[in-house]
Amino acid sequence: MQASQLAIGIDIGGTHTTVGLVHQDGTISWQQQLKTRDYKTPEAFIAALKTTLQPQIDRIGRNHITGIGIGAPNGNYYSGTIELAANLPWKGVIPLTQMVEDAFHLPVQLTNDANAGALGEMIFGAAHHMKNFAFITLGTGLGSGLVANGQLIYGHDGFAGELGHTIALPEGRPCGCGRKGCLETYASATGLVTTAIEFLQQLKQFETYPDNWLATIWQQKKQISAHDVFIAAENHDPTAKAIFDYTAKILGLSLANLVALTSPEAIIFFGGMAKAGDYLFSPTKKYMEDNLLSVFKNKVQILRSQLPQANAALLGAASLVWA
Amino acid sequence: MQASQLAIGIDIGGTHTTVGLVHQDGTISWQQQLKTRDYKTPEAFIAALKTTLQPQIDRIGRNHITGIGIGAPNGNYYSGTIELAANLPWKGVIPLTQMVEDAFHLPVQLTNDANAGALGEMIFGAAHHMKNFAFITLGTGLGSGLVANGQLIYGHDGFAGELGHTIALPEGRPCGCGRKGCLETYASATGLVTTAIEFLQQLKQFETYPDNWLATIWQQKKQISAHDVFIAAENHDPTAKAIFDYTAKILGLSLANLVALTSPEAIIFFGGMAKAGDYLFSPTKKYMEDNLLSVFKNKVQILRSQLPQANAALLGAASLVWA
Repeated sequence: MQASQLAIGIDIGGTHTTVGLVHQDGTISWQQQLKTRDYKTPEAFIAALKTTLQPQIDRIGRNHITGIGIGAPNGNYYSGTIELAANLPWKGVIPLTQMVEDAFHLPVQLTNDANAGALGEMIFGAAHHMKNFAFITLGTGLGSGLVANGQLIYGHDGFAGELGHTIALPEGRPCGCGRKGCLETYASATGLVTTAIEFLQQLKQFETYPDNWLATIWQQKKQISAHDVFIAAENHDPTAKAIFDYTAKILGLSLANLVALTSPEAIIFFGGMAKAGDYLFSPTKKYMEDNLLSVFKNKVQILRSQLPQANAALLGAASLVWA
Repeated sequence: MQASQLAIGIDIGGTHTTVGLVHQDGTISWQQQLKTRDYKTPEAFIAALKTTLQPQIDRIGRNHITGIGIGAPNGNYYSGTIELAANLPWKGVIPLTQMVEDAFHLPVQLTNDANAGALGEMIFGAAHHMKNFAFITLGTGLGSGLVANGQLIYGHDGFAGELGHTIALPEGRPCGCGRKGCLETYASATGLVTTAIEFLQQLKQFETYPDNWLATIWQQKKQISAHDVFIAAENHDPTAKAIFDYTAKILGLSLANLVALTSPEAIIFFGGMAKAGDYLFSPTKKYMEDNLLSVFKNKVQILRSQLPQANAALLGAASLVWA
């Protein structure tokens, strides 16, 4: 009988990098965090990884480690590089896969965080045994990983799966990418807040400013968070419900179009906005169904991630080794 | 050395069914046509196939035939059935794969005609050696087959790849599918004609009806064909160019969104509308590029099918055996 094999997962985020040892059943036997911003150069970062990880590799034995999987913003599976990641301290094109291979002499795979998340769900989470599904992270922005025939759709250059940058409304809201109307300018925490402010300003303009929770918060703080909109909905604020409905209408149509192209068994949501729960997902599912071609109706599950939020990114990164 | 292997291709269309023997290099050593509508039941159709094909199988020897590939409207790869195909004489759900297997005792694969076309391009045509591309048939409607990681995206139910039924303009033109604003109501021969009539009616309404080729045709025939619009463009009719531009704007945006999701190496066009050539494709490419996320710009080739038009469907069907 073969000894149990482990994967090393490395999740690189703008603030923290988490490294850990992941077993094939999804248990994490060791993990540690580095502060990404402490390392001004990729070389310094690799040196810190070496100091942290090498004792673990020596303890377990190299032959019990199948490989290293890395999830990172703008990580490219094919080139093994991180390119122009706005929230990382290293500029330009970083050949991260090669650097980590040179440091540890183990097989290394790299992809972006949304793709890693999709693999995590496939191996350890809500997409277990699924071969066709979409994984969507709803946070500050909207990231996605698409799986078809049991494999991530990387596209010919490794950059596929950008649902957040499909144009949902031509000539719509300006997006950080330089274009207009991208889905993530509507369907994300940032988008929800923009919508909230637009709705509240419109109420004010028409002098129907209601004496409600959300309007009060806005008057007091002069700003609104996605969490405020959620709390307002909990308090039965009709404006909050209208804000979620507007968001859901745009997201639901985009999901219907995604289904027409890839016909997933499920669409799995992860991230801070997923906490908005039924306020967002019930109307989103309704609008998706309304816009589906009849052959797809009542077939596509809308699910929430089944990975523990705290370890999801690490499990996703490690999944690259098992996928 | 192994003897050369052959595939049997069966392309089922509303009018004709073509059967043929296809070699691995794409040469067709024998083919014959049946009139699909002559066979009122699937059983009668299978009997005719048997009469036509069995002598060829006996002549070549069963062990030299790898299998049978079938392309058919609404053909489902997973279930092996044709379901509710509007332009075929047989109603309901036809278990075609099973029926053909029972008749010939050879492995049988079935898919819809656009998917078969995509495989044909991958094995014999413009997508040779590509692992990530989109294949689009522009005819009366818009069909598509999407290939990622060298495999067709069938989705979990076999119905993926419906680019023509992504909603391009919410609340737009009524579509035969019962919804509104589907891409194929704009980007197809039918869509082009609808646009032409809208444009000509608008010219008339504003009393700026020009003394041009297209307007003259419309006045004389009280109808317009896609070919008329093409001829008008050849004659430098500005209305015709505006019609192509309008079509290209909608198609280009949809292609940009497709690229964001699947990042294909190329988008390959096939079908009657592909003959419109640069009148359609130059502005389509421009609008696609205008709407692309920067990481995808100037990377995606727009190509025309490299399969001979007369044999494309047959080669596509046979490709199912080699894919």
